[in-house]
Amino acid sequence: MSMNGAQSLVKTLLRAGVDVCFSNPGTSEMHFVAALDEHPDMKCVLGLHETIVTGAADGYARMAGKPAATLLHLGPGLGNGLANLHNAKRARTPLVNIVGDHATYHGHFDAPLTSDVEGIAGPVSDWVRSSKTSYRVAGDAAEAVAAARQAPGHIATLILPADCAWSAASGAADAIEPPHPLAVSADAVSAAVDWLRSGRKVALLLGDQALMSGNLELAGKISAVSGCELFAPTSNRRIMRGAGRVAVERIAYPVDVALERLANFEAVLSFGADEPVAFFAYPDKPSRVLPEACELLPVAGVRQDIAAALTAVCEALGAENAAPPVVEFALPEAPSGAITPDAAAAVVARVLPENAIVIDEAITSGRSLDRITRGAVAHDWLQITGGAIGCGFPLATGASVACPDRPVLGLQADGSGAYSLQALWTQAREEQHVVTLIFANREYRILKGEMRNVGVTQVGRNALSMLDLRRPNIGWVDLARGFGVSGESVETVEDLAAALQRGFSEKRPYLIEAVMP
Amino acid sequence: MSMNGAQSLVKTLLRAGVDVCFSNPGTSEMHFVAALDEHPDMKCVLGLHETIVTGAADGYARMAGKPAATLLHLGPGLGNGLANLHNAKRARTPLVNIVGDHATYHGHFDAPLTSDVEGIAGPVSDWVRSSKTSYRVAGDAAEAVAAARQAPGHIATLILPADCAWSAASGAADAIEPPHPLAVSADAVSAAVDWLRSGRKVALLLGDQALMSGNLELAGKISAVSGCELFAPTSNRRIMRGAGRVAVERIAYPVDVALERLANFEAVLSFGADEPVAFFAYPDKPSRVLPEACELLPVAGVRQDIAAALTAVCEALGAENAAPPVVEFALPEAPSGAITPDAAAAVVARVLPENAIVIDEAITSGRSLDRITRGAVAHDWLQITGGAIGCGFPLATGASVACPDRPVLGLQADGSGAYSLQALWTQAREEQHVVTLIFANREYRILKGEMRNVGVTQVGRNALSMLDLRRPNIGWVDLARGFGVSGESVETVEDLAAALQRGFSEKRPYLIEAVMP
Repeated sequence: MSMNGAQSLVKTLLRAGVDVCFSNPGTSEMHFVAALDEHPDMKCVLGLHETIVTGAADGYARMAGKPAATLLHLGPGLGNGLANLHNAKRARTPLVNIVGDHATYHGHFDAPLTSDVEGIAGPVSDWVRSSKTSYRVAGDAAEAVAAARQAPGHIATLILPADCAWSAASGAADAIEPPHPLAVSADAVSAAVDWLRSGRKVALLLGDQALMSGNLELAGKISAVSGCELFAPTSNRRIMRGAGRVAVERIAYPVDVALERLANFEAVLSFGADEPVAFFAYPDKPSRVLPEACELLPVAGVRQDIAAALTAVCEALGAENAAPPVVEFALPEAPSGAITPDAAAAVVARVLPENAIVIDEAITSGRSLDRITRGAVAHDWLQITGGAIGCGFPLATGASVACPDRPVLGLQADGSGAYSLQALWTQAREEQHVVTLIFANREYRILKGEMRNVGVTQVGRNALSMLDLRRPNIGWVDLARGFGVSGESVETVEDLAAALQRGFSEKRPYLIEAVMP
Repeated sequence: MSMNGAQSLVKTLLRAGVDVCFSNPGTSEMHFVAALDEHPDMKCVLGLHETIVTGAADGYARMAGKPAATLLHLGPGLGNGLANLHNAKRARTPLVNIVGDHATYHGHFDAPLTSDVEGIAGPVSDWVRSSKTSYRVAGDAAEAVAAARQAPGHIATLILPADCAWSAASGAADAIEPPHPLAVSADAVSAAVDWLRSGRKVALLLGDQALMSGNLELAGKISAVSGCELFAPTSNRRIMRGAGRVAVERIAYPVDVALERLANFEAVLSFGADEPVAFFAYPDKPSRVLPEACELLPVAGVRQDIAAALTAVCEALGAENAAPPVVEFALPEAPSGAITPDAAAAVVARVLPENAIVIDEAITSGRSLDRITRGAVAHDWLQITGGAIGCGFPLATGASVACPDRPVLGLQADGSGAYSLQALWTQAREEQHVVTLIFANREYRILKGEMRNVGVTQVGRNALSMLDLRRPNIGWVDLARGFGVSGESVETVEDLAAALQRGFSEKRPYLIEAVMP
């Protein structure tokens, strides 16, 4: 059977289990589009901007536990998706970018769209390859998927010159099994057990797979027996939390708060997490947030078998049959009045549906969410991981593609939301069960705080012009309607609660603008 | 007087004549924001996404003839602006990016926002530097502006680590004069004159500064005396055109049309333009659009003195006193009925105000604009130069900052417009006199044509899901309202004409959705 490079690529992706493609194609990808068109078992989801495409692929993989493909158009299309690829890389999300490029022989004519695609891909990819001939495309694709799937998850970028797509190929390639995670060191396990038995002040720092429910219970058992405390990094790919789950405390974003909280720990045993550090440097503040004398013991790095490490420590401690401390179902009191961050968090805790997926890009409006929603019904919590704002809407979109039957709640800061509101259109097209709550404080509030940290007390015209989002106010309900999504604007937490109930009761996307004082 | 690096940077930019800063700052740029706040003579313009910031800086410089600064937040902020930097680089726009980065000592802690800023900047910059100490920031900034201003115009990216902004500096640096454009070769001029006197079929290919009015007249005189024809590349930074100007014909985008039009030329003499080539490669079509036997003679490259080259050829031909063929004021008939591309172009020609700035990102809806608007009142025409869609709204925003008293008309394809609609908010905030005409054909029409080129006649579910923009239709008037801009939707050219008149009569931004059959 005759086949071109693009057809061999699509068949290879499907064989490797990649059956969702988030896309925004261009001319050089038309043969790939034609090949996708022959395979209805590949689900193609259009984003109106590539930041939607890459952010949705991130959200999808976080929930599906396997990579989606993206389809991007040369250097600028990849560039548009770069910020959310940065977040995905920091989340250690498995993801396969297919980036179209000029035909191999056309590049040296320097046509207007000619760009250094490999150069742009490099900083946000763990694996980059440009197919050299149409016959190699299938093999390259199989390797790309394996690279993406290798633990803990990687960004693989395969560049597809147009002639490698349209020229003859010999067929699809079989899936390549990625290597197993690296084994855990017995010495590290025994050092961890020594610390846990020492009676000294010890924390477990849990990241990545350690925040998934089976592993969380292992950590909970270790904590029950040893008295250690459980922490997670400030930003995480996915945390399973709520009633019935083992709770972990996220390290606070503000440096001073983190320093104070961690001040007395003598050892931190990490499972799937790196050393916690300050998000930004500040004059006269440290970059590290662990006390100088604290020992950091990486029991399992992200490339190692995190579940095995937790199991080994649990067994060595004799904690297999301990009862992990699980969170009891407990809701905060119903708040009333103005929509403050704390009151909004209480509403969220109270209305959250069972098994919801929460996307948290609430930024300053979300500082109390972790604490206040602790005892809500069980749910998944997905965060902005790389600090590149504009991931919220796309993550929600992708998570809903992975889990179409689960309700998704987007907790969305307004400044960040304005980066990627086009995802609302995809939510409407795919009829997704996504409710977005916009925290409309109408400023880059985090930056106003940072101005104070820098010593500026009197904000002038130029600074205000860069930090303030009034003049004009953004009309979120109009924007949502423009992209085919219904919504409403509310100014009290009572109305917010009712609006959220309305949103969840419909099985379509819904947007609520919560105007904050 | 004590000064920090950020303060020395702002003062240096102002000394070098850079007094507009398009920005979207983050935490690591707070000292720079504080320094900007001390200088009300620096105009700071906020974009809600960095593609607005870089695209507006491009539009500003195309009209102001000098660079603006941008203020971007680490690798992801730069990445978000990358596509429009690609366009700006292809337009040979002078532009100075200031990209904040982590403090020099904080980078190796690999905090979440750590990124390879230099690596991301490289593919879209002509000049990249990361300041090493606060004392060097002023000198680096002076060099960045000089690099940007060097003919024909360059992208200079200065990376500013946070501690280089907040630590002590010795003061501002003086402006550095960029080197003069390279001299024109006398041999090239005489070879050009030989061709022009040969009686053979010769074209001038005019790009860059050759498309500005004084130079266009020189080209017109050469044409009047020699009978040569005048062409411009398919995509251009800025063309001065309309009644009273010398007309140039843009080389058509479709390869077959370009090939046929250029088939009989024996020589192309270029001034500020590279060899014209196909935008994309296609199976069985050539990359070059000039006939094989045609000689391409670069009389002046973009780094050379284009005006001097045209003057020298004009004088050598004895054409100084020839009357250049200028376009007569002539409007098309008033069209009626449905909004086809031709009818819309006729309306545009008829309503265009004197001295308007037209931003052309109309893509397939704009194929006949060049021909039909030829005899409209004099105006400037700015195009998408690098094929990275999403430049239209931001270019209009930046052009209006440069020329607040001139009316701006954005001719905007809907698919491309969805990339950067956030610029509407900036237009509202700055109360800009920008009218946007959305060509709502509700699909990526160019790609449907390309699917046919690829041999696909029957478009299936997956292809349609990536090419079609219905389900749901985008509500452009709602989107505009959400960002504070008034507008209306029209379905006939009569209504379109009235809507455009309304838009131009107000001195505020206005958006018209033209629903096409």
